[in-house]
Amino acid sequence: MNIAEELLNGNRFALSKAITAIENEHENATEIMKTLYPHTGHAYVLGVTGPPGAGKSTLTDKLAKEYRQRGKTVGIIAIDPSSPFSGGAILGDRIRMNSLTLDEGVFIRSMGTRGSLGGLSHKTADAVKAMDAFGVDVIFVETVGVGQSEVDIVKAADTTMVVLIPGMGDDIQAIKAGILEIGDIFTINKADHDGADKLMTELNMMLDLDGVMKDWRPPILKAVANQNQGITEIVDTFKKHHDYIEGNGQLTVRRTERTKNEMLDLLDGRIGSYIRRRIVENGKLDEYVEAIKARKTDPYSVVGEVMESMLK
Amino acid sequence: MNIAEELLNGNRFALSKAITAIENEHENATEIMKTLYPHTGHAYVLGVTGPPGAGKSTLTDKLAKEYRQRGKTVGIIAIDPSSPFSGGAILGDRIRMNSLTLDEGVFIRSMGTRGSLGGLSHKTADAVKAMDAFGVDVIFVETVGVGQSEVDIVKAADTTMVVLIPGMGDDIQAIKAGILEIGDIFTINKADHDGADKLMTELNMMLDLDGVMKDWRPPILKAVANQNQGITEIVDTFKKHHDYIEGNGQLTVRRTERTKNEMLDLLDGRIGSYIRRRIVENGKLDEYVEAIKARKTDPYSVVGEVMESMLK
Repeated sequence: MNIAEELLNGNRFALSKAITAIENEHENATEIMKTLYPHTGHAYVLGVTGPPGAGKSTLTDKLAKEYRQRGKTVGIIAIDPSSPFSGGAILGDRIRMNSLTLDEGVFIRSMGTRGSLGGLSHKTADAVKAMDAFGVDVIFVETVGVGQSEVDIVKAADTTMVVLIPGMGDDIQAIKAGILEIGDIFTINKADHDGADKLMTELNMMLDLDGVMKDWRPPILKAVANQNQGITEIVDTFKKHHDYIEGNGQLTVRRTERTKNEMLDLLDGRIGSYIRRRIVENGKLDEYVEAIKARKTDPYSVVGEVMESMLK
Repeated sequence: MNIAEELLNGNRFALSKAITAIENEHENATEIMKTLYPHTGHAYVLGVTGPPGAGKSTLTDKLAKEYRQRGKTVGIIAIDPSSPFSGGAILGDRIRMNSLTLDEGVFIRSMGTRGSLGGLSHKTADAVKAMDAFGVDVIFVETVGVGQSEVDIVKAADTTMVVLIPGMGDDIQAIKAGILEIGDIFTINKADHDGADKLMTELNMMLDLDGVMKDWRPPILKAVANQNQGITEIVDTFKKHHDYIEGNGQLTVRRTERTKNEMLDLLDGRIGSYIRRRIVENGKLDEYVEAIKARKTDPYSVVGEVMESMLK
């Protein structure tokens, strides 16, 4: 049996190997994904995002345990930007997560960037599919980071939770359209700290301004993840949002949109690497670069020429 | 006269309009860049990067003033990730920079992401070229952020300075290969704070481990930007590094590499948007998405099919 078949037979080690193949863009990754694809579409995907230090990992950890108690199997994909500046928090998260790994019903995986964040978004989508095909019920996609690209990654989720904490000061003013659009649920973590009520008021005001015409008003929940407070309420609210978007057809719309975007991203990546390979192989690349450097031509004209020569 | 010709005639407003066209991917951006390209290659490009809060903007500000005193014109491109979580520091930076904008010899521009960070890297490269063609002597590319993609943006510089501050705690351990590779010069800003000597020692150790076989040992400088301390030393060191890489041919190698990467990035972007447009126009996109959703096929097979149909 190959990796994909073993994975479909419930072999955890094969799931792990499949995700490694995805992460490393191993040559058999596409074959694995083709085999797995018909078996996807059953898992529910939860995005967890928010600024660094908001306690997203601890919260995800507790939420995973709550789902386990409700009889669900859980996958966690933690996006690690592998930035030279990313700091110690990420390493700490990884170690912490080991407390869950003894549970056979939980599958945890962190995904690094290596290449570009764009590539990461595509790899995350494939890792979600691998866990889905494996038969996991609920998949968390958790970003540790901050950037727009990581917001894009979380857009791949069925339901997205934005985690905030009190004491962000004026930073709340920077939480503009982007975050209001992606959050189906807001959670104020560390809600026992000073400023939780102030943050709640500010968030409410922003959501009221934004949400006049919307029929799902994102609820704002409070939690103290490391004391296990607010966890069941969050899981209940996930369920409520799931039922809501399933009932009104939005879940189908979101998944169609996701399918489209993932397909286009894959296309971009594949065509890009195909053409790079071709102009390296036919020895044209160095020729082009020399001509551009000598200002005999310019990159924009060269790109037009390459497209002319390679596209039907 | 069109925008590019006006820019080449020294019209500041035309430079501003050209960069806006680049940022918005306006349809005339390519024509502008084709006209400007032969006039590029004269400016020296300085990258400034480091973790948030390191005081990069204040430092860049002071360095720009020092270059002005030495008779150079200066461009500053501040990369603003426009993240929903990016916080107030960025807004603050923008306001602060206005103190320089009264000087006709300084041109400041911030560039946001809008789309992907990948796109930003390409737009930054074009903005650098626009300033270069305008006749600016020294161009700073300053990132406010943290991610790998922003490190990639800074790789487009001739000389890169990494700015760090004392009190980063164990985060120094996270400053691994990536940062050592990109830093030609390290500056410890806020060097009057506790821990500056400790950071200096740690950095020295890391650079010694890394630099055994290298002939340019990145110097570590100290500065207190808001008190104007250490500024002339940094500018002198930029000059020293410039002379060094010009003398041994490395500058040419770096610029060749940059030309190649920029050309390939441009190619990726153009081909991606061309193919997207075509499968939307021929009505195939929705058909593909429906077939994938129904699990009649899978994204990987569809992408193979599209490539087959569009590539020569």
